[in-house]
Amino acid sequence: MLLRCLHRAASASSTLHSAGQLRLFSRSAARCIINDDFANRHIGPRRIDKQLMLDFIGFQTLDDMTNRNVPNLIKLDRDMDLPAPVDENRMLKEIQEIANMNKVYRSYIGMGYYDTIVPAVILRNITQNIGWISQYTPYQAEISQGRLESLLNYQTMVAELTGLPTTNASLLDEATACAEAVAMASRAARRNTVLLDPLLHPQNRDVIRTRSDPLGISLGELDMDRMELSNDVAAIVIQYPNTEGCVQSLENIVAKAHENKTLVILVCDLLALTLIKSPGDLGADIAVGSAQRFGVPLGYGGPHAAFMAVADHDGKKSLSRVMPGRIVGITKGANGERALRLALQTREQHIRRDKATSNICTAQALLANMSAMYAVYHGPKRLTEIARTIHKSAAYLSSQLKAAGHQIIHRDYFDTLKIEVKDLNGVKKRAEEMKMNFRYFEDDTVGVALDETTKAEDVADLIYVFNGVKADVAVVEEAIFEQASPLIGNSEHSRASLFLEHPVFNTYHSEQQLVRYIKRLENKDVSLVHSMIPLGSCTMKLNASAELIPITWPQFNGLHPFAPLEQAAGYQKIFSDIEKWLCEITGYDAFSLQPNSGANGEYAGLLAIRNYHRNTGQEQRNICLIPTSAHGTNPASAALANMKVVVVDSDRHGNISYKDLVEKCEKHSNELAAIMITYPSTHGVFESSIRDVCNKVHEHGGQVYLDGANMNAQVGLCRPGDYGSDVSHLNLHKTFCIPHGGGGPGIGPIGVKKHLAPYMPGHSIVPVAERISGAVASAPWGSASILPITWAYIRMMGNSGLKKASQIAILNANYMMKRLEGAYRIVYKDEQGLVAHEFIIDCKPFKKTAGIEVVDIAKRLMDYGFHSPTMSWPVHDCLMIEPTESEDKGEMDRLVDSLLAIREEISLIENGTLDKQNNPLKNAPHTLATVVSDTWNRPYPREMAAFPKPWCYHKLWPTVGRVDDQFGDRNLVCTCPPVDQYQN
Amino acid sequence: MLLRCLHRAASASSTLHSAGQLRLFSRSAARCIINDDFANRHIGPRRIDKQLMLDFIGFQTLDDMTNRNVPNLIKLDRDMDLPAPVDENRMLKEIQEIANMNKVYRSYIGMGYYDTIVPAVILRNITQNIGWISQYTPYQAEISQGRLESLLNYQTMVAELTGLPTTNASLLDEATACAEAVAMASRAARRNTVLLDPLLHPQNRDVIRTRSDPLGISLGELDMDRMELSNDVAAIVIQYPNTEGCVQSLENIVAKAHENKTLVILVCDLLALTLIKSPGDLGADIAVGSAQRFGVPLGYGGPHAAFMAVADHDGKKSLSRVMPGRIVGITKGANGERALRLALQTREQHIRRDKATSNICTAQALLANMSAMYAVYHGPKRLTEIARTIHKSAAYLSSQLKAAGHQIIHRDYFDTLKIEVKDLNGVKKRAEEMKMNFRYFEDDTVGVALDETTKAEDVADLIYVFNGVKADVAVVEEAIFEQASPLIGNSEHSRASLFLEHPVFNTYHSEQQLVRYIKRLENKDVSLVHSMIPLGSCTMKLNASAELIPITWPQFNGLHPFAPLEQAAGYQKIFSDIEKWLCEITGYDAFSLQPNSGANGEYAGLLAIRNYHRNTGQEQRNICLIPTSAHGTNPASAALANMKVVVVDSDRHGNISYKDLVEKCEKHSNELAAIMITYPSTHGVFESSIRDVCNKVHEHGGQVYLDGANMNAQVGLCRPGDYGSDVSHLNLHKTFCIPHGGGGPGIGPIGVKKHLAPYMPGHSIVPVAERISGAVASAPWGSASILPITWAYIRMMGNSGLKKASQIAILNANYMMKRLEGAYRIVYKDEQGLVAHEFIIDCKPFKKTAGIEVVDIAKRLMDYGFHSPTMSWPVHDCLMIEPTESEDKGEMDRLVDSLLAIREEISLIENGTLDKQNNPLKNAPHTLATVVSDTWNRPYPREMAAFPKPWCYHKLWPTVGRVDDQFGDRNLVCTCPPVDQYQN
Repeated sequence: MLLRCLHRAASASSTLHSAGQLRLFSRSAARCIINDDFANRHIGPRRIDKQLMLDFIGFQTLDDMTNRNVPNLIKLDRDMDLPAPVDENRMLKEIQEIANMNKVYRSYIGMGYYDTIVPAVILRNITQNIGWISQYTPYQAEISQGRLESLLNYQTMVAELTGLPTTNASLLDEATACAEAVAMASRAARRNTVLLDPLLHPQNRDVIRTRSDPLGISLGELDMDRMELSNDVAAIVIQYPNTEGCVQSLENIVAKAHENKTLVILVCDLLALTLIKSPGDLGADIAVGSAQRFGVPLGYGGPHAAFMAVADHDGKKSLSRVMPGRIVGITKGANGERALRLALQTREQHIRRDKATSNICTAQALLANMSAMYAVYHGPKRLTEIARTIHKSAAYLSSQLKAAGHQIIHRDYFDTLKIEVKDLNGVKKRAEEMKMNFRYFEDDTVGVALDETTKAEDVADLIYVFNGVKADVAVVEEAIFEQASPLIGNSEHSRASLFLEHPVFNTYHSEQQLVRYIKRLENKDVSLVHSMIPLGSCTMKLNASAELIPITWPQFNGLHPFAPLEQAAGYQKIFSDIEKWLCEITGYDAFSLQPNSGANGEYAGLLAIRNYHRNTGQEQRNICLIPTSAHGTNPASAALANMKVVVVDSDRHGNISYKDLVEKCEKHSNELAAIMITYPSTHGVFESSIRDVCNKVHEHGGQVYLDGANMNAQVGLCRPGDYGSDVSHLNLHKTFCIPHGGGGPGIGPIGVKKHLAPYMPGHSIVPVAERISGAVASAPWGSASILPITWAYIRMMGNSGLKKASQIAILNANYMMKRLEGAYRIVYKDEQGLVAHEFIIDCKPFKKTAGIEVVDIAKRLMDYGFHSPTMSWPVHDCLMIEPTESEDKGEMDRLVDSLLAIREEISLIENGTLDKQNNPLKNAPHTLATVVSDTWNRPYPREMAAFPKPWCYHKLWPTVGRVDDQFGDRNLVCTCPPVDQYQN
Repeated sequence: MLLRCLHRAASASSTLHSAGQLRLFSRSAARCIINDDFANRHIGPRRIDKQLMLDFIGFQTLDDMTNRNVPNLIKLDRDMDLPAPVDENRMLKEIQEIANMNKVYRSYIGMGYYDTIVPAVILRNITQNIGWISQYTPYQAEISQGRLESLLNYQTMVAELTGLPTTNASLLDEATACAEAVAMASRAARRNTVLLDPLLHPQNRDVIRTRSDPLGISLGELDMDRMELSNDVAAIVIQYPNTEGCVQSLENIVAKAHENKTLVILVCDLLALTLIKSPGDLGADIAVGSAQRFGVPLGYGGPHAAFMAVADHDGKKSLSRVMPGRIVGITKGANGERALRLALQTREQHIRRDKATSNICTAQALLANMSAMYAVYHGPKRLTEIARTIHKSAAYLSSQLKAAGHQIIHRDYFDTLKIEVKDLNGVKKRAEEMKMNFRYFEDDTVGVALDETTKAEDVADLIYVFNGVKADVAVVEEAIFEQASPLIGNSEHSRASLFLEHPVFNTYHSEQQLVRYIKRLENKDVSLVHSMIPLGSCTMKLNASAELIPITWPQFNGLHPFAPLEQAAGYQKIFSDIEKWLCEITGYDAFSLQPNSGANGEYAGLLAIRNYHRNTGQEQRNICLIPTSAHGTNPASAALANMKVVVVDSDRHGNISYKDLVEKCEKHSNELAAIMITYPSTHGVFESSIRDVCNKVHEHGGQVYLDGANMNAQVGLCRPGDYGSDVSHLNLHKTFCIPHGGGGPGIGPIGVKKHLAPYMPGHSIVPVAERISGAVASAPWGSASILPITWAYIRMMGNSGLKKASQIAILNANYMMKRLEGAYRIVYKDEQGLVAHEFIIDCKPFKKTAGIEVVDIAKRLMDYGFHSPTMSWPVHDCLMIEPTESEDKGEMDRLVDSLLAIREEISLIENGTLDKQNNPLKNAPHTLATVVSDTWNRPYPREMAAFPKPWCYHKLWPTVGRVDDQFGDRNLVCTCPPVDQYQN
């Protein structure tokens, strides 16, 4: 015991000695005795396993290994200057103190964000349940039917509330959804002008502006009174109810737009739609909005799920087929069973690259699932009841305010009043006294938006704030109950169409029923609680419990994103710590936390480059070099930033062809805007030429965008900011432990060198940066409420833990690679025969020798209890494997053993022992129903199908046979099917 | 919508009208619109289903039904005076305010309770995971292998740390464990005197006294210096280390005791045992203690798991076979596989009744599992490291205090110092300033006990408190690291024997590994998240998420049970609310919350009766009448209270034979102490004679003990205190939503009429009551930290919700009964043909007709995805079914359909279609391995075995075949088996 600590201390000492900090020696050792070492819990392999693996790949120490595979030229030769790590208990105490610095006022600001009640059953069993938050995106549909069903519920909910038939499984936030809708409409209509309702929420207008400009879409103001539309108007965008809370009659406006073949985009409030006419009722073409108030906390701005729904006026689903984002659709499995999977994937950027219609590749799956379950739990009646109570409360408040002499600006409203007050200063003073936030307009009117949490006491307090007189809560409660109000009944605005009639929204209304439903879905899905998810490029590392605990605290959840900054001191501390730490980790000078996905970060980074060139008189620079091996999002983001993509070749080692790079740089020297590269490369190799590449691009006036997806192999070893990069996004949901959530949330902050700092994303409401660049997300700090995860991770790991994590990630990859290389060809290694944190195995040969495709291996892995590695990316017909540092040797050995066993099965096909068509790989995955069937007639035994290894007895079973993608795409259904199609 | 609320309001009105409270009408209606109605979430059947079920059993309204089955004479004809219910959001706000009334000081009080760090991974994935806390006691072993494995880990942990081979799966708390050990030793040695170490923790001494007196065990003081033992001394009981923290050499004492054939009971500290000689090393016979400091929060006293371990000096396991509590043992399943189950059940009170050696029937399974996982996660090295750090911190503190002139009383200590201070008032003042609690002895010395949470900063603060001088934290940290100390190395006390070498304690040391292990075990066990657990008499109703959220808040978890009362104002508010509410619900005048299980409550109630008779000069009253149908705990508790059990017969309806009662009362009139009855009866019937029974017993000077197990059928309908009962315990873990935790914790508070109030349990440290009766549990308020669950439930249900819950529980039972009565004989109904909240179906006939035993039906139900109802209790060869109000109609229909299908299968055996031996019932349950096996050779199809109903495709599978109880009891193994016996 003591020995072990002394050993650790000694190795610490040798590092520290060089830094001249001997004083720290015994401190660090003492700390290792007194604290539980979080890094040791985060990292999978035990000391002895680490040594075994090092021996196996031929090194003595981790440093020996990384000294060999990280190029000398770029190596970081000092410790990162980060606070000394603390254990989880201490971290939780510290972050509790930080959380307490936030002041949670009652929020009546509105503007697209409303307080809501998260049902405890959803909080506990989804939001706080690692089984629901640590799954990957449901690309492997057969072991993802649980959350695919929940996302289908989400789509059905959105489709029915909006009255539009096709929806997707969520978008990043309302403002980006608006921008996506504008771009889509412009493409669909082949017109270049879009007119905006002046009463859009300001952040929606802001992001639409940011995103439209590079696409060449010109924006104008919509005059709803005159409705004069020229014939280049692709679409009009209207907030419904508008940002001042007014519910307008839109029938005539829609008719006039359609006369002009102009599409109508409504940005709507999902809860209001239970009472007022739906976009479908009104004949709109596209609806977007946020599902936040369906049971997802304010969280200082996010993450929340946004939605998009489209009409099918031409009967050809033409809008559906160009809609951005993931769509869950229904298809059939190999046994003819109903099965769900992501539909129309050919639209997505990983296929279409710079022809993609959007660079969206994350969704907000976890938040969409929370919102869907909120609708499942409440059902149409209770949702309507909630909306009515809010509306009646607003109506009552309005009557009381009018009686006291204030003026209510709009006659028709759902939950939001715009008030011309008699005594603004008095109101502000009493609001502060009652700890209430309002929206203060520039014209000195006040906005008050009520929500689900507004009770009679709150209404009484509001009356006090405005009228200066205390109201009797009991009287208020009765009055609200008796309150008549325009939207309830048969007003011109009242909704007549029914919604959410499907049984799923009318069954699970007791808590016990909902718990069982949630757990039943959970148990259909592989997540990190079952086995490693070895996805190359999409790190699935541990999401530690201690990191997740703070994110559901009310002090983080209760803040409105536009609350006065002084109420958010805790958040500001989290942001500034993270920014400072990330700068130290990456070598950049500044960070923006606004981008709420990796792709959004890429976009923000390219925008910074674009605006930098413009502001330095280099507007002509619009060429973006992208290596063949790049993520599909890279060219898609470049296209959205209006850059022209020029591809740079790879050499036979998979490295960037320096020769080709030089040629392209020279050829496009005057137009060169940027290069986008990934490091270590997407082929899993530390390219030694990285510095040269950066230098060459700089020589020609270009900027270097370094995709931070693989930052997890570099932390503590080398820093992009040191070796020549100008800007990167980081995938916090990968390297920095934000859980994958079954397909989102992600966070993609960007780090930049000083010269680019002025060009980071701004915000129209909260001054987060110079506003040279517009906003790229609704909220000033994007998905603020999950940033504590990253804060906690860095706080508990410290310099030594973070560095060790990188090293073990590399060790794990090399260990697996070495174990597999006899059976599979390793596609790329570096000059030393090593890989970085991931590697690619070649499955192409088996096509010829056994008729086996890479997908057969992927599906067969499910029978062994594993989620497939990344399939056919970045190299076709290959698997890319990334174990991460959190996986232990035992788990890696099980995966390796499975892949070796599958290779043996392929041999049996090659030598004719197994049939070429009817074999365990072609028929994979095998469901329980199949292997227990009384009519088993396969030419191989059931146990071979089901239990090829001993651990398979407690594997998670695929619940459907191999899904048929083509069938589903031909017969697109993306809402819950009629009841008679349900079984079980 | 509005209609629905108006309807509700109207029905509320009709009730309220009679109470003359019309004012409340619209309030209540308004509330129903504005709040989410918790009762509506807690209760399973939807409005429409409720009506369908009422129609089916022939009633129009719930009131019609209960007016029929609750006897008129005892009916409660008014609303209960409880606060108007609130929704979960409001409840959480209120209880947060209450929690904030508690002041969490740093606790250095010791006395068996030590602060500890709950690893976040255990908190999140066990304590806060409904999948781990809503299982039943693992009587159905085949679907309980997960927690049986965890409890086996607990037993192994205790066995290895104590060095004694046989342990049980936890006891209620350390003090009751002491009392159990004393009783067991006295029986085993056939001697009646037990000598107690004067330095036992006072609460241990207190409970030993309480429990020994009725058993006729005389207690004396142990003089460890002289060790003069007379030959009637059964055992000596020593605290190790003792309550002043001193570690003594015990070898000679053990030797002298053994010379006298006196057993040695050591009450030990599990964490200290990592450093000091184990009871086994010292040759002790019995070890007891608490596992609290292994990762279970202080929680103001509980719940925590206690342990008992026994030696096998005679090689015949004779102590093992009389050990109280549940024991998990290893046996084999039907397919020869290793399987776990509860061993030696024939010892238990439900079999042995008044011959039972203990009335224990609950364990602290959930807490034992937390502690076991703590050991699994830390392993022997880290546990030792934790203990060493504490010890070295104590040693360093000691040196600093001595240097400043204080006197440290004992030379050898582990974590606790007894200090003669120079300036007591100064210490007290600075302790208050630093928010620190110490133990202040009567002789003006001060006790300071350090623990896992004590960091260098805390030691520095302690030095300040004692010496008045601020210490430099960095200096303290280094000094602790360098600190030498007697227990580390080769002192006379140092432990040399190894422990926890089994792989389970040396594998899951990264968080990812532990998460997967926890989840793998979870997924082997049926809990309420899968399907209803329809256990007659052991209500398994919803444990709502909102009820569970507060219990892991630090404001409830961080308090030492002996902290000054003024620091526990929040807890005191919870206690007084619950006591007040329970009085109103039951009709009693006072409540004691101390008993920490139902059986313990029974014992406390009987003790109150016993002491009442003694104090009123009726000492001769020692006869306890108990009907044949009573819970086995009743006679066992009576025996422990030194009452003589006289059985009262039942009539053919299952009711108490009034005639026999009268005879027995008359016969024993002078000695009649009490009657123990259950109402509604354990046969599931509201007996109409209940008032007469109570009156008759009172006539003869006896007291009525009404077992509150079935209170869930009475709440809001009738009150024991009204119809003649003098005392009851309530099973909060049943009626009032404390989760079952896989076999505990339970809480069994007692309610009494005024004349018995002075005789409720006292406490030696905290003045909870007059101290006529001694304590029955370690902590003054028993399992305080889970009482917020009950508080939350009552707060959210209110009068109407609670009453409706009782009514729906009765409706559900009658609905199921009516659906089943064509296929199974219903053993008991009342005069109206109704049952109460549970009913019994007769399975005896099938023995003759088909050779089918009730156990075959129970096991076959697992194949249908269900946990069996209560088997062979209270009537042999029958099943007792209790659905509870939380189950919805769909779930009940699935269970009924399963039972009907099984009846059909029995018919197929009866008519020869299925083989008499080799059929799906005899072979049940079927595991995955069996039904997928390549060697299936059963005369019925696999699908019939595995998927008899469509919903079985997502059932939880039994992981072992039917367990062999006899084999396991013959070959008792109750610790983890050697590694080579592990598969998978």
